[in-house]
Amino acid sequence: MATLKVVKVGGKVIEDDGKLQSFLKSFSEIKGSKILVHGGGSIASGMAQRLGIAPKMREGRRITDDETLDVVMMVYGGLVNKQIVAKLQGYGDNALGVTGVDLNLIRAKKRKPKPVDYGWAGDVEEVNKSVLNMLLEQEVVPVFAPLTHDGQGQMLNTNADTIASRVAASMAGHYITELVFCFEQEGVLNGEDVISNLSSERYQQLKQEEIIKDGMIPKIDVGFEARTQGVSKVSIRSYKEIAVSKAGTELTL
Amino acid sequence: MATLKVVKVGGKVIEDDGKLQSFLKSFSEIKGSKILVHGGGSIASGMAQRLGIAPKMREGRRITDDETLDVVMMVYGGLVNKQIVAKLQGYGDNALGVTGVDLNLIRAKKRKPKPVDYGWAGDVEEVNKSVLNMLLEQEVVPVFAPLTHDGQGQMLNTNADTIASRVAASMAGHYITELVFCFEQEGVLNGEDVISNLSSERYQQLKQEEIIKDGMIPKIDVGFEARTQGVSKVSIRSYKEIAVSKAGTELTL
Repeated sequence: MATLKVVKVGGKVIEDDGKLQSFLKSFSEIKGSKILVHGGGSIASGMAQRLGIAPKMREGRRITDDETLDVVMMVYGGLVNKQIVAKLQGYGDNALGVTGVDLNLIRAKKRKPKPVDYGWAGDVEEVNKSVLNMLLEQEVVPVFAPLTHDGQGQMLNTNADTIASRVAASMAGHYITELVFCFEQEGVLNGEDVISNLSSERYQQLKQEEIIKDGMIPKIDVGFEARTQGVSKVSIRSYKEIAVSKAGTELTL
Repeated sequence: MATLKVVKVGGKVIEDDGKLQSFLKSFSEIKGSKILVHGGGSIASGMAQRLGIAPKMREGRRITDDETLDVVMMVYGGLVNKQIVAKLQGYGDNALGVTGVDLNLIRAKKRKPKPVDYGWAGDVEEVNKSVLNMLLEQEVVPVFAPLTHDGQGQMLNTNADTIASRVAASMAGHYITELVFCFEQEGVLNGEDVISNLSSERYQQLKQEEIIKDGMIPKIDVGFEARTQGVSKVSIRSYKEIAVSKAGTELTL
């Protein structure tokens, strides 16, 4: 089987032009099939604020009302996605910017309004493996913005880590698949140390001790999900030198 | 040869949810290969205003400074494009929202800053016929936002009528190609009457008499350009019942 690298980039890397460019340059040097998934939450929050729309969060997740959906469609699907695609094309990757609606790549279901009404938030139902596979076979580099659709004409806002995890898991039957979450930190930290290998047992323990907490928890959770669904390697690491360096935290079952 | 319909939709149709939906429903009923190109200038102007960015126009064309490029990337590439793609997917078309950067579909050149500096405005250099053809053969419906790139990492703002004309002309060797510009008017008007057939001779005359003027002129110009470059039929017409009705103005050489 051929190999596939699914890379999620988020956090402050996307806000910082210099960091983003250095990341994209290194990403473009990855050989073989690859998929990029990006976030952009803080740019969306900034844009919402400029438009006088107060960010509505609950348990670390954005509540996507009508206005907020417009903002994330603009920021994720337009601004951030096309900036990334333009740079990758400039570096010689045949990038294609997509959301889940394009080619029906990711169909989702609007989250139930109980117990918390997250508005236009979508939970992934199905990744269109055959279309994604066809794109990869033509050496296209899909670049996913974290948006999906319900198949009935409605766009939905979906967490980028989850998209990366589900996309990787869905391709694991066709490729030896590696999933990499990268951001401005060196990996999952224990104080100042980077945890090199994190087993699910150790993870439970460090969660209980509140050494691992907040936004890192859902990221690790979806990472382990991908791992149990056939993804060969899952790591959480720095955005730097993504094409060559092996640093960071590897999740082991 | 198979047939291909390239449809440009713009004007107030895009701002009006009801009109846009009725247009898209009818568009989805067009059989055979088709490409949609959309505008969105007035939504972009409204968004720029909300963000405190004064719209800068010169001779009816937008001057695209850094801030304005961000706005058009958000509005054209994100908001409008994905709304349209979601509706078309809901109606059963396998739509793919793209700009010129995606799959390197349209490469452009930044317009020279003399005599007028239009900023990040791009003039189309090349349409990627083979990739477009590959998409059409897979029954994909490409939906173009009016943005291009320079191949070096820079996005550019490009007129939607021009994109429609150049895309149609570039496909005219592979398909019997029809180009349709549609908007809220019934066609090219002479007072209250719709001109059914407009020859280039008659067009010159009506321009001189200032019966045809303003924004209609560049639209007709790029329409005639497509016609001389092998597009079989070019018409300017209402957005209504695009799949069935034959009304409007046809441009004849």
